[in-house]
Amino acid sequence: MAGAIAYISRDTDGVAWKKVLEAGLGPLDFRTLKGGLGNIDEIEVALAWKPQPGLLATFKNLKMIVSLGMGVDHLLADDKLPAGVPITRIMDDGLVGQMSEYAIFWALRHHRDIDKYEASQRAKVWKPEDFIDTIHRRIGVMGLGTIGQDTARKFAMLGFPTAGWSRTAKSIDGIETFHGADGFRSFLGRTDILIDVLPLTRDTRNLLDAAAFAALPKGAYFINMARGGHVVDADLLAALESGHVSGAALDVFNTEPLPADHPYWTHSKVHVTPHIAGATNPRTASPGVIENIKRLHSGQPLINRVDPKTGY
Amino acid sequence: MAGAIAYISRDTDGVAWKKVLEAGLGPLDFRTLKGGLGNIDEIEVALAWKPQPGLLATFKNLKMIVSLGMGVDHLLADDKLPAGVPITRIMDDGLVGQMSEYAIFWALRHHRDIDKYEASQRAKVWKPEDFIDTIHRRIGVMGLGTIGQDTARKFAMLGFPTAGWSRTAKSIDGIETFHGADGFRSFLGRTDILIDVLPLTRDTRNLLDAAAFAALPKGAYFINMARGGHVVDADLLAALESGHVSGAALDVFNTEPLPADHPYWTHSKVHVTPHIAGATNPRTASPGVIENIKRLHSGQPLINRVDPKTGY
Repeated sequence: MAGAIAYISRDTDGVAWKKVLEAGLGPLDFRTLKGGLGNIDEIEVALAWKPQPGLLATFKNLKMIVSLGMGVDHLLADDKLPAGVPITRIMDDGLVGQMSEYAIFWALRHHRDIDKYEASQRAKVWKPEDFIDTIHRRIGVMGLGTIGQDTARKFAMLGFPTAGWSRTAKSIDGIETFHGADGFRSFLGRTDILIDVLPLTRDTRNLLDAAAFAALPKGAYFINMARGGHVVDADLLAALESGHVSGAALDVFNTEPLPADHPYWTHSKVHVTPHIAGATNPRTASPGVIENIKRLHSGQPLINRVDPKTGY
Repeated sequence: MAGAIAYISRDTDGVAWKKVLEAGLGPLDFRTLKGGLGNIDEIEVALAWKPQPGLLATFKNLKMIVSLGMGVDHLLADDKLPAGVPITRIMDDGLVGQMSEYAIFWALRHHRDIDKYEASQRAKVWKPEDFIDTIHRRIGVMGLGTIGQDTARKFAMLGFPTAGWSRTAKSIDGIETFHGADGFRSFLGRTDILIDVLPLTRDTRNLLDAAAFAALPKGAYFINMARGGHVVDADLLAALESGHVSGAALDVFNTEPLPADHPYWTHSKVHVTPHIAGATNPRTASPGVIENIKRLHSGQPLINRVDPKTGY
């Protein structure tokens, strides 16, 4: 008999997940942090989002950890994470599409001078602005996994010259690619709108510091829908202050929720959203989880495995 | 020897057009309304945007009229337009791409609840909103010419269920199509975000009236990047007031510039932009004009001809 599935999240109640998993697998022993975990020795699969450090280590018979987000830094931050238990992550077409929507929305807002048009409307002034030809607005996507590739491909399809940067070399039709530390500065130097979708790892923490912002062309725009931990906030604020970076749309922060006294909230050049660029969507995320639970029970290799060494 | 080319626009000076046309055709006798038209009997080609009614009729040796916009209602409104002179219009990939950008920007702004997130930022409140799955946000594009097809195709590529409506039946991969008066109500009934890119003709003037807005689902959003003459303004204002239409992004108006006392300027549910959704871009619009000037001189049939009967 299959063991229990534990839904470990303090943000959501798991009702939608229970429904989609049971639609694919039949009735389940589905337990939640909020509803009570019962005898934790019976837990075989943990669906987890920001679990309390040490909690997963107490599930003695755990056979698979499923990250409810595509990023797994929230799991790897737990230094008691049971080393022998495979970690998988959701792959969520719905979430991927939402992320691309988010990037496209803020990039177009900057590209099409909506700040100026909003000001003109408030002043009741009819004033067409000079425009920058789309072929001269260079998009740069940091991170070329599932999300980054989808985002880059969609910008290219909209006619923007688009490049991507990743840790290891990648080749993508229609996208100029850069990689590694050596390629980072060249990538930034040709990027007018920088879009961050990297995972948070040892290598990417604080990657966006004063030197990185200085390497962008003057007036560049920054969109962060990855992790706040990539950004040295004081350096971004300084680059905004000097005008070298013209604005930013930030969905993720070093501390979430963003503290009420943080300068981003009231900064005239910063748009703040509450980590909503891509919401995990049980409809689109569940097929991969259902597949992995079946594989677990039939002894097949799991899909969407995470390598704790690279962090994704 | 070729005759003169007259640039007839009160909005722009024609410098960019002279440059791109001479790059393709060599030195030209290029005259402008602002710089002086000289002997108007020498004018063979008129590049025109909102010419003064009756002006083109005074050019006795005119052989071709080129509309500097993709819409030609500004020409056909001139009842003295010389009947025997062929009218062509620019086909401008750059303008088409800009139009799609405009529609995507405002559609995503509505789709992703940016109004609510802006209010949350002003209040320094971290508050993720429930989201509507992209597959449940139905886009409807009125007009399936070059612009409408590009716009519809891009929305479909972003994952939105997308339909189009046109005067005559069309079939487009991945797009549900409706046509004619009979299809109009069905099209509106399944459309959550209505995007207007129709030409302004006798048939489309005042097409968007109280009955049309009432046929949309409650809460629908309206984006007009076509012509203000399609809209009965009092009916749109009433639909916004009742909440049946949740908001509108309007780039075009019955009177342009939009008069300072018009209620759209200050309406909390209306975004006003000054007819900038698609700006004619000499870089991308000139190849078709160059081709037609060559065809005129060599006696070949013109491309991008306008049929004055249909108005496009």
